[in-house]
Amino acid sequence: MQLNQASQAQLSQWQSELTAEYQALQQQHLNLDLTRGKPSTEQLSLSDALDGILNGNYTTADGTDARNYGGIDGIAEAKALGANILQVNADEILVGGNSSLTLMHQTLTMAYLFGFNDPASAWKNETAPKFLCPVPGYDRHFSICEQLGIEMITVPMTATGPDMDQVEAMIKADSSIKGMWCVPKYSNPTGVTYSDETVDRIAQLGKIASGNFRVMWDNAYAVHGLTDTPQAMASIMAACRKHNTEDSVIQFASTSKITHAGSGIAFMASAPSNLKAFKAFLGIGTIGPDKVNQLRHMKLIPNMDALQSHMAKHTAIIKPRFDSVLRNLDAAFSDSDLGAWEKPEGGYFISFDAQSGCAQRIVQLAAEAGVKLTPAGATYPYSNDPEDRNIRIAPTVPTVEQVETAMQVFIVCVKLASVEAKLAA
Amino acid sequence: MQLNQASQAQLSQWQSELTAEYQALQQQHLNLDLTRGKPSTEQLSLSDALDGILNGNYTTADGTDARNYGGIDGIAEAKALGANILQVNADEILVGGNSSLTLMHQTLTMAYLFGFNDPASAWKNETAPKFLCPVPGYDRHFSICEQLGIEMITVPMTATGPDMDQVEAMIKADSSIKGMWCVPKYSNPTGVTYSDETVDRIAQLGKIASGNFRVMWDNAYAVHGLTDTPQAMASIMAACRKHNTEDSVIQFASTSKITHAGSGIAFMASAPSNLKAFKAFLGIGTIGPDKVNQLRHMKLIPNMDALQSHMAKHTAIIKPRFDSVLRNLDAAFSDSDLGAWEKPEGGYFISFDAQSGCAQRIVQLAAEAGVKLTPAGATYPYSNDPEDRNIRIAPTVPTVEQVETAMQVFIVCVKLASVEAKLAA
Repeated sequence: MQLNQASQAQLSQWQSELTAEYQALQQQHLNLDLTRGKPSTEQLSLSDALDGILNGNYTTADGTDARNYGGIDGIAEAKALGANILQVNADEILVGGNSSLTLMHQTLTMAYLFGFNDPASAWKNETAPKFLCPVPGYDRHFSICEQLGIEMITVPMTATGPDMDQVEAMIKADSSIKGMWCVPKYSNPTGVTYSDETVDRIAQLGKIASGNFRVMWDNAYAVHGLTDTPQAMASIMAACRKHNTEDSVIQFASTSKITHAGSGIAFMASAPSNLKAFKAFLGIGTIGPDKVNQLRHMKLIPNMDALQSHMAKHTAIIKPRFDSVLRNLDAAFSDSDLGAWEKPEGGYFISFDAQSGCAQRIVQLAAEAGVKLTPAGATYPYSNDPEDRNIRIAPTVPTVEQVETAMQVFIVCVKLASVEAKLAA
Repeated sequence: MQLNQASQAQLSQWQSELTAEYQALQQQHLNLDLTRGKPSTEQLSLSDALDGILNGNYTTADGTDARNYGGIDGIAEAKALGANILQVNADEILVGGNSSLTLMHQTLTMAYLFGFNDPASAWKNETAPKFLCPVPGYDRHFSICEQLGIEMITVPMTATGPDMDQVEAMIKADSSIKGMWCVPKYSNPTGVTYSDETVDRIAQLGKIASGNFRVMWDNAYAVHGLTDTPQAMASIMAACRKHNTEDSVIQFASTSKITHAGSGIAFMASAPSNLKAFKAFLGIGTIGPDKVNQLRHMKLIPNMDALQSHMAKHTAIIKPRFDSVLRNLDAAFSDSDLGAWEKPEGGYFISFDAQSGCAQRIVQLAAEAGVKLTPAGATYPYSNDPEDRNIRIAPTVPTVEQVETAMQVFIVCVKLASVEAKLAA
């Protein structure tokens, strides 16, 4: 289907055919959900041994009673795993509670209100502090900036990461840019892994930005490959060491998509100076994280080898779902101008770019046929996708059969919305 | 020992005798700790069944998979228990992660930055927002105010709670007073439980204070009696309903001193309007609390009966420690003017008021004899006990034998510091 070459008559005929097809799908009264990046039940069950895994032994490797208060930055064995995942030293890691999003929220709240270096470095002192947001990106990152009143400036994602020429030019031109969001590996939602050059250029931003600039490096999918040969990503900390910018980047990761999504443990890594300031902030609001749960996690996943074989089981479960999405998109659109998408080698999403002005209508049509999609625009700051093109597909929760059905609906909706738009043009 | 009637010669003699006694104690090279209100190992072990208690069943009563993301305000069965503890309705409760302190920190951060009602109600809009702090009180409460730059004004604690005449007069006189800290039952550190009249008068503060005034009602020791007949406290929410001030009080509690101190679950209760605003704030920084841990707790402590019999086991363990402290204080000081203290019927502390100007010296002497005490002044905002009198004794962690030894040291230190002060006067 090539809309650009189609006559008005052809478009009208397609519209009636597609409408009939769509109405038939509506008659199936489907109730399918491709909205959020959640693990499926099958994936969650991979970690059910967590409950009971301690066998009555609540003592950490260094003899700490994990049950009691204390230990603001987590237990040593969990730090060791986090340091391996994020490729940092043992004094550059902190292990928190069940949510890396919480660590990010706390980090930005602290940087905004109190500053990493001293009160003068607090972002609130700026008339209009700003953040760079590669798009499409992760809605929950954008919500934190919006809550704090940090203005978001978009930068396009490319196949190698954010457009670094633009990033560098913007930072050089505007000292009120205080940071940038990054999901560097199997990016949410495009699936792109930053190239070595991108990683190195991001590590250098600390040299051209203002002193209190911080890259929020959300490595949420660090070990979440979908193939037998996971992509390698250059170490941001190693690059920072080369450029003496260790304090310009703060890394995050978690076990949310490794063990139980709502009951995992979260990691944060940065220069010791940043962690020191953060721990002082954190210590006002907590006596420490849930160390018992950290200990449970270390019994289930004691090291990187165990982590990799655990993740291979996730891959085996979710790869068929991604394959289904990609097979359906290929079959429907590879010879058309109706959409473009990346083939991710990891992560939780497939990012679909429809024709301009069609995303909202596609999501609406799908919803009315019983297929929930992430709201159009959600992948942009302020939910404003200026071209109304991007739709994030999250295929992990439904079964393969459900993904197949949902994709059939999705495809009809894309076609119908595109034909409608062309007819209205 | 009555210092006021002692001659200089008598004082000097006491000083040499006490110094000799003190030096002998130092030779024992003790290493004892009466600093923080932590449960003892024995107490923690009461809840060791938590790990493994789910038996592979991670489903909540309403069919939710506790392992996955979601549910910002906690699982229904945990809400029911929290509502019982704090005596509120099911729509007036929220269940969080492992720390009620975190909920308090988030509450004040939100009220300060964004307001409970609308941006205009944010406390940061005040030139100098203030908080009333009954003293002696809990250092971690004061640290939150200090972090946010909320000025703290002290109010004396009495045997029935804060001096309510002063509280009411201050609030009437100053609309920049935005709230008050309360530990209403077995108060930290005095052990006082607020009288019915105090509870009722606090419920009426919302009528005389500014619209965005909030009482922070930290009911940390709600079920933590030390006797067979726990004290009853009037329900603050019932009193608020009577006076139409439901949104003026926010209650907190947790299982930190019920199950595993660092790995419990926390409760927050208030008017639905407050909870709605809080959940909107909270949802920016988390997808939800650890529901698996909430479910574990509900298996261990499904209802108030189970809770009460569980708490009776705690009482059996820690009461002998409190008895030891009180017996030693009585024996040493009941016929002297060297100190005054309350006899708590619950909670985690005994609050000791030395002679003015002696608390810091007592803590220092004790430390140098191997007995750690909470730093003098910690029970006051800005760590400033203007009379340098109050010392908080936390006897739960050491064994009874250790408490006995520590109290012998403490008593010698109190006597020695008092004699020194009298001689220097």
